[in-house]
Amino acid sequence: MTAADTAPAPAPPRGYAKGRARRDAIIATASGHFAEKGFQSATILEIAAACGISRAGLLHYFPDKEALLQAVLAARDDEDRGRFDPYVRAAGAVGVLRGMVDLAEHNRLVPGLIALFVRLSCEAATPGHPAREYFLRRYERIRRDTQRALAGAARAGHVRTDLDPGAASIRLTALMDGLQAQWLLDPGLDMAAHIGATIREWLTPEGLRVFEGIPVLGEA
Amino acid sequence: MTAADTAPAPAPPRGYAKGRARRDAIIATASGHFAEKGFQSATILEIAAACGISRAGLLHYFPDKEALLQAVLAARDDEDRGRFDPYVRAAGAVGVLRGMVDLAEHNRLVPGLIALFVRLSCEAATPGHPAREYFLRRYERIRRDTQRALAGAARAGHVRTDLDPGAASIRLTALMDGLQAQWLLDPGLDMAAHIGATIREWLTPEGLRVFEGIPVLGEA
Repeated sequence: MTAADTAPAPAPPRGYAKGRARRDAIIATASGHFAEKGFQSATILEIAAACGISRAGLLHYFPDKEALLQAVLAARDDEDRGRFDPYVRAAGAVGVLRGMVDLAEHNRLVPGLIALFVRLSCEAATPGHPAREYFLRRYERIRRDTQRALAGAARAGHVRTDLDPGAASIRLTALMDGLQAQWLLDPGLDMAAHIGATIREWLTPEGLRVFEGIPVLGEA
Repeated sequence: MTAADTAPAPAPPRGYAKGRARRDAIIATASGHFAEKGFQSATILEIAAACGISRAGLLHYFPDKEALLQAVLAARDDEDRGRFDPYVRAAGAVGVLRGMVDLAEHNRLVPGLIALFVRLSCEAATPGHPAREYFLRRYERIRRDTQRALAGAARAGHVRTDLDPGAASIRLTALMDGLQAQWLLDPGLDMAAHIGATIREWLTPEGLRVFEGIPVLGEA
């Protein structure tokens, strides 16, 4: 799915809007099935049945299970990226760091989706896995965005200048992943608190003041 | 496998030593198969064939694939734990932290085993997975040992007293896991450097001096 697929058309015909709604419903159902059974065990037939359509009806929207998986992953990324917008508007680069704490807090509410991501990201290391390319690009993007936020916050005097933004972005990404894996086994673990504690160690006193002053916008 | 299983008997009969060697060979072969194909896809029959024995011969040592998996996991834990001994003897609590850098460096040399661990630790979050209990206990143990090392190093003046050893142990464990997942997709990633950088942030100037002064014992 590209940005163009999700951008609303200027005057969508009724059939188009109906198709969009059906497509979104399939993605939501597939996401639940993949999270519950794993990608390998879930079947197109079951997902179609849960959507109240035929197998052929589903294949009209997604030619195979891999295409459906790509759509599930892209939909979650779009949603997660959207969570950062208000934080960036409120506080620029250091707002991105606040948004990461918010995202960790939000992830608590979607354990099935986290289980799917954790499981897929591990399976995807196998050469030839259909989600391998996706996870490679996803890591690149997350690391690049995090690095940019840390470097921008350092220029603004909010992050310590002795921190290497590139290396720290790898560590913060790894921390988020590793916390999710532990949390799936130990749901009492407070992912947001650990992400927040790590970021606070990197902030200057002024950065800490700004960081703590950004209102958290709620978890839903 | 318990400690009693691996402790050498005072005067082992020849048949016993032969059985031990066969058992170790099966574990090594199974470890390779699980790492390459994943636990679900590997079969007892293939592993037995690769060991040059019959299926019944293998089942004499391990009653099922789950028992074999437990033995593979326990053997790796025993080996990893042994890596810390010389570091503890050399420098006590802060030596444990140095040992973690060494372990991260060593893990680079066993990508198949790391892939198996990463994959299993993710699968194991599923209720009913045969390795779930193992990973729960393993996280508890690693976090407890890390917490103890950080608290001990803090008492010795080597770790900052404002660091919460319990929370930091969760973060360091998560970081190690997350780095392994990224490294499987991006083998250029230097896991040991990132673990070292995180630990250095927690050390006092005196702790840093001791930490840097502990010779790294080699990777093999």
